[in-house]
Amino acid sequence: MTSGVLHLIPVPLGDIPPDGALPLATLTALRALNYFIVEDERSARRFLAAAAHPCAIRSLRIERFDKDSDASRARQVLQPLNQGISAGLLSEAGCPAVADPGALVVAAAHSAGLQVVPHVGPASMILALMASGFNGQQFMFHGYLPPGRDQCRAAIAGLEQESRSRNTTQIFIETRHRSDALLALILETCEPVTRLCVACDLTLPTQSVRSRHVRDWRRSPGAPLGRRPSVFVLYAR
Amino acid sequence: MTSGVLHLIPVPLGDIPPDGALPLATLTALRALNYFIVEDERSARRFLAAAAHPCAIRSLRIERFDKDSDASRARQVLQPLNQGISAGLLSEAGCPAVADPGALVVAAAHSAGLQVVPHVGPASMILALMASGFNGQQFMFHGYLPPGRDQCRAAIAGLEQESRSRNTTQIFIETRHRSDALLALILETCEPVTRLCVACDLTLPTQSVRSRHVRDWRRSPGAPLGRRPSVFVLYAR
Repeated sequence: MTSGVLHLIPVPLGDIPPDGALPLATLTALRALNYFIVEDERSARRFLAAAAHPCAIRSLRIERFDKDSDASRARQVLQPLNQGISAGLLSEAGCPAVADPGALVVAAAHSAGLQVVPHVGPASMILALMASGFNGQQFMFHGYLPPGRDQCRAAIAGLEQESRSRNTTQIFIETRHRSDALLALILETCEPVTRLCVACDLTLPTQSVRSRHVRDWRRSPGAPLGRRPSVFVLYAR
Repeated sequence: MTSGVLHLIPVPLGDIPPDGALPLATLTALRALNYFIVEDERSARRFLAAAAHPCAIRSLRIERFDKDSDASRARQVLQPLNQGISAGLLSEAGCPAVADPGALVVAAAHSAGLQVVPHVGPASMILALMASGFNGQQFMFHGYLPPGRDQCRAAIAGLEQESRSRNTTQIFIETRHRSDALLALILETCEPVTRLCVACDLTLPTQSVRSRHVRDWRRSPGAPLGRRPSVFVLYAR
């Protein structure tokens, strides 16, 4: 018997129709699957319905794999693939296994000799990098910076220094309610000539991208980011 | 008069139908534009025809911006946007302004106060990262490693060491005809427990992804990569 395939299926970055936000090849792959490994069952069902999955959503097999799941759980959720059933690994938003817990499932799939197929969809850090106009030949993604004010400030200064010395663009994210505090800390910490791009609500109708020197951000910081999902891109050169 | 908008339009990673590989939102944006800034006019025309652009392709305005173009040329190709004409920035493959010359055009657009809108499409380094199963919370993209054998070997050893000490996934690419030489050098240089993923022909019917420890690569290196476009992902932890 042929083993099942693990399909890595991206999810839109917000509440927009999946058939506009994902390529047809991704939608076709996901509509052919009856088994999904997801971070959150409820939002996964909502997404599958919005993506016009041809089966009754309640008839689909859905297993949870979230930030508290471990390698043993990863092997467990991959069991059906040994019986020839293919699975879709879904993220909550964006690409599975990038800045989300799914990488453990992908690693377990490789260990088990299963075929892994990544599909095209939105990746917020790449959209922000494209939109920044900064160096796209070398870049680093850091996920979240440390939470404490002093530690975060030290991290920002370190990334700025590294950007300058290695000519590399630095990308990081923040939980929604702390985006304005992080922006203020960056403007306090960085050199006036360092460049900062803040990309909000990427791919949504409310999308905005501002990319300028820190000195210009200080002069006119603009409207607060509020609770809009934001990606920060820093470049010192 | 309202200024034109700079749309960043990704292009499929190979010779596959654009309407399967790009989301409808990206296709809709590109079909509404009559002005394109491109790396190579001939392949851009071929792509626009394949993407079912509604106008006669020869009637579209197309300006070249390639690796030899500078910031002054970037300002020049953005001139029509001051007259209210929107433009699409195209890459040869994948996302414009990521590992391609387009970032200078995006930077010039921000300097001129123009709106920049990134669109969703394939990014080979993100597809490879997803498919690797390695750490997707922190990663670095390095573009091409240095060409000389000794320098390249030193770079590989440095990336491996950095991956271990910073718990970060390292991504890099190689020109097609040197992929097998790079693979051999990685297998020679890295520790047996370091993990290596090689993703070839991403999104194409011939796509393949192999992700395993260096010791397993050494035992069974598999078929040569040949001239297939390949992304290398390294993780030492």
